[in-house]
Amino acid sequence: MSLYKASIIGGGVIGGGWAARFLLNGWNVSVYDPDPEAERKIAEVLTNARRSLPSLYDKPLPAEGALTFHGSIADAVSDATWIQESVPERLDLKHKIYAQIQEHAPGKAILGSSTSGFKPSELQQGASHAEQILVAHPFNPVYLLPLVELVPSAITPTTITGRAIEILSSIGMKPLHVRKEIDAHIADRLLEAVWREGLWLIKDDVATTEEIDDAIRYGFGLRWAQMGLFETYRIAGGEAGMKHFIGQFGPCLQWPWTKLMDVPELTETLIEKIAAQSDAQSGAMSIRELEQLRDDNLVGMMRALKRTASGAGGTINQHEASLPEPEPRELPITVSRQVPQSWTDYNGHMNEANYVQASSQATDRFMELIGADAAYVASGRSYFTAETHIRHLAEVNAGEHISITTQVLSGEGKKMRLFQSLFRTDGELAATCEMLLLHMNLKTRSTSLPARKVALRLNVYANTHADMLMPHGAGRYVGQKTGRI
Amino acid sequence: MSLYKASIIGGGVIGGGWAARFLLNGWNVSVYDPDPEAERKIAEVLTNARRSLPSLYDKPLPAEGALTFHGSIADAVSDATWIQESVPERLDLKHKIYAQIQEHAPGKAILGSSTSGFKPSELQQGASHAEQILVAHPFNPVYLLPLVELVPSAITPTTITGRAIEILSSIGMKPLHVRKEIDAHIADRLLEAVWREGLWLIKDDVATTEEIDDAIRYGFGLRWAQMGLFETYRIAGGEAGMKHFIGQFGPCLQWPWTKLMDVPELTETLIEKIAAQSDAQSGAMSIRELEQLRDDNLVGMMRALKRTASGAGGTINQHEASLPEPEPRELPITVSRQVPQSWTDYNGHMNEANYVQASSQATDRFMELIGADAAYVASGRSYFTAETHIRHLAEVNAGEHISITTQVLSGEGKKMRLFQSLFRTDGELAATCEMLLLHMNLKTRSTSLPARKVALRLNVYANTHADMLMPHGAGRYVGQKTGRI
Repeated sequence: MSLYKASIIGGGVIGGGWAARFLLNGWNVSVYDPDPEAERKIAEVLTNARRSLPSLYDKPLPAEGALTFHGSIADAVSDATWIQESVPERLDLKHKIYAQIQEHAPGKAILGSSTSGFKPSELQQGASHAEQILVAHPFNPVYLLPLVELVPSAITPTTITGRAIEILSSIGMKPLHVRKEIDAHIADRLLEAVWREGLWLIKDDVATTEEIDDAIRYGFGLRWAQMGLFETYRIAGGEAGMKHFIGQFGPCLQWPWTKLMDVPELTETLIEKIAAQSDAQSGAMSIRELEQLRDDNLVGMMRALKRTASGAGGTINQHEASLPEPEPRELPITVSRQVPQSWTDYNGHMNEANYVQASSQATDRFMELIGADAAYVASGRSYFTAETHIRHLAEVNAGEHISITTQVLSGEGKKMRLFQSLFRTDGELAATCEMLLLHMNLKTRSTSLPARKVALRLNVYANTHADMLMPHGAGRYVGQKTGRI
Repeated sequence: MSLYKASIIGGGVIGGGWAARFLLNGWNVSVYDPDPEAERKIAEVLTNARRSLPSLYDKPLPAEGALTFHGSIADAVSDATWIQESVPERLDLKHKIYAQIQEHAPGKAILGSSTSGFKPSELQQGASHAEQILVAHPFNPVYLLPLVELVPSAITPTTITGRAIEILSSIGMKPLHVRKEIDAHIADRLLEAVWREGLWLIKDDVATTEEIDDAIRYGFGLRWAQMGLFETYRIAGGEAGMKHFIGQFGPCLQWPWTKLMDVPELTETLIEKIAAQSDAQSGAMSIRELEQLRDDNLVGMMRALKRTASGAGGTINQHEASLPEPEPRELPITVSRQVPQSWTDYNGHMNEANYVQASSQATDRFMELIGADAAYVASGRSYFTAETHIRHLAEVNAGEHISITTQVLSGEGKKMRLFQSLFRTDGELAATCEMLLLHMNLKTRSTSLPARKVALRLNVYANTHADMLMPHGAGRYVGQKTGRI
């Protein structure tokens, strides 16, 4: 049972995304939305979230919380720690709903608004507990993208802002504290600028929606997913630096490069034109297919960014480090994780390289257990794999939860022989992986004895595991008949 | 010896990027730049390009062409197929240089300009061969980002535009044919809009350079690396579609969300402010370190996009398919490729999972050789790996070129036993990988006999390879002493 409850007021694409992110991070979630379709819509968002969010991590997320739907705001917000409002962008409507929320919600609950346009001081007008209301503006898909613009007003206590940052970070988000309230916050101002310029390009027949998208995704979009505008330009300035860059490109500000002095009128003709171009560009795929394609790409790219801890990759690493290790059983469980889409191949199941990747993660975790951790490697010592034998016994699909147990077959001197068993969601043994590792000196790149502390801990495991049965399949060669050992 | 020569006129960051892209795709490259530092600068760009561009592909790029430096435009452009001008953005300077180029260049050479601002009709003014001049505007880093805006003028023959698209595609780029010339083309108009809004946010103390970058890279930047503005919004509109989305957000156009009606004045104070914020944000890393971080992230994300062929991933897949297979020797070479940064681990060498990934690529290639190719898999039949034994014999580093030979140990009935040898750049045997594969029916997920054609081709390989020596290390179990077999 989760100790925390998030109340979701308004369950559209954004509210549903919030529900999914809280739920998959172990919170209970209560939803209020008068739309009779709300339950179905949130179920669809959850389906997408379950196949993608856990795949960002190499550890399991907490057990899912409970999801409930309520017919009144009063029911939905009772006992809530966090209340997230995602109703249409009408200030009078928001004020009316806040009055109902604050009548029934706990005095300590924080009320975040998903508004993309309003300032927190506007949202707080006339509220009974104005200090609890702030802007928490997320980005679609909320369950994957880490950014949330957190905007307090001048009257918001720093304790509330601090608590909000803590809670949002604990569900894997990156709260960007906007220190000065402004219409549309930061990101949407930038988006609005591009949107307006895009409308002009379409209206004037310079480019279609697809050509504009291509101008973004084959070029600067790839830069912006990892560094933003200014760090990218800093690099462009080269050794001469940022001032040089501005000096070189600053004069362009006087050139007639944008139509932005003016705003295009959204006539019916222009809307039809955009819709028709968008159909020609993306109409072959359903929205559901586009969502899954987007999510698979996001997971793939964000996993790539984990490696250098850049942008979203850094957020995932931090969140992952805060997740608890799976509980120990008889044999240590050294991997417990979801299989991402990107781990599957053309045969429709987990690719053989990813079996070794998972076994390698199991080895890393086991090394930590015996004290051969990151600090140990940084000190110039490590284990290298010398030999591996894998048996594939059952197929594993994307989205399945796998776990690996590690048994020490022997551990003496420079050698460590491990036997990893990989289990599927249904408990079936899907693969075994026997590995011989050698302890190395990372400076000389030659074998060496482990530190005494590591050797002793390895010895404890080796002695304990020696009492167990030799696992079936250990010590085999490729193609050996089952009965032969 | 390459048949093609590209002349690079102006060898800064952009010219150097062009030089690297042509060179690494097998073209000879001649450079003209009066800067005495040009040779050193281009060498630095090449170092970056060599460690990243080949890592995008799972096949080798062509052998590098020859790079030469010349003291005059006349020397540099003789025999050129493509001439790329990347000199400072002054129209009078460009016109002067075009006159010199066209006096000495072959009549059929295409002259592309990297200009970010000028229209092709402006560039063509007063030229002796105006029809050969068009805009080919790339994006930094030119050796990695595929986008190039190709802008012909009203007088450019379609044959020239077509030939330019063909050449740029052949070096792995994505030419975006801009059909209507306009100041700043398409992408830079969008960038300029964001840049102006960003300057306001900094000037008004709403956000720092780092906060603006975070607002981009933790949120919409990740969306834009794969889909652009309009496809992303199409999804946001949900099943109701693009018209619904515009209807919902269109009214915002009338809100005061941007400062874009006005342009901030670039005073010395504002420039100092931006430079100081940028130093605080990124000053801990040198430009070289930032470049390598950027390139590693780009390679990682673009490789993630290959999987779904989205955006840049699709461009890489197409280019890769056009690359020739490595030449056959005695044993088929089933892998020949560079080791990307992302394949290395905390021990500073290629991770064990990637040995299996490479061996798996070798198996795929061998399956193609015996006719068990993508069409065969699509028809419902495939091979699954049942068992694998790997011996790690020497370390492999990022950037090294590895090759794998595949020997058939046996191939009868449902079984195929392969022995893959993985060689380093220096020819040393780095690993062996013995694999037992079973032929499968993909519908029933049970073993089955291969198609007759596949069985016959496998048999030919098995018979040929049976005459060779049993490779050292085959048939071993994990930890077996060397002399024991």
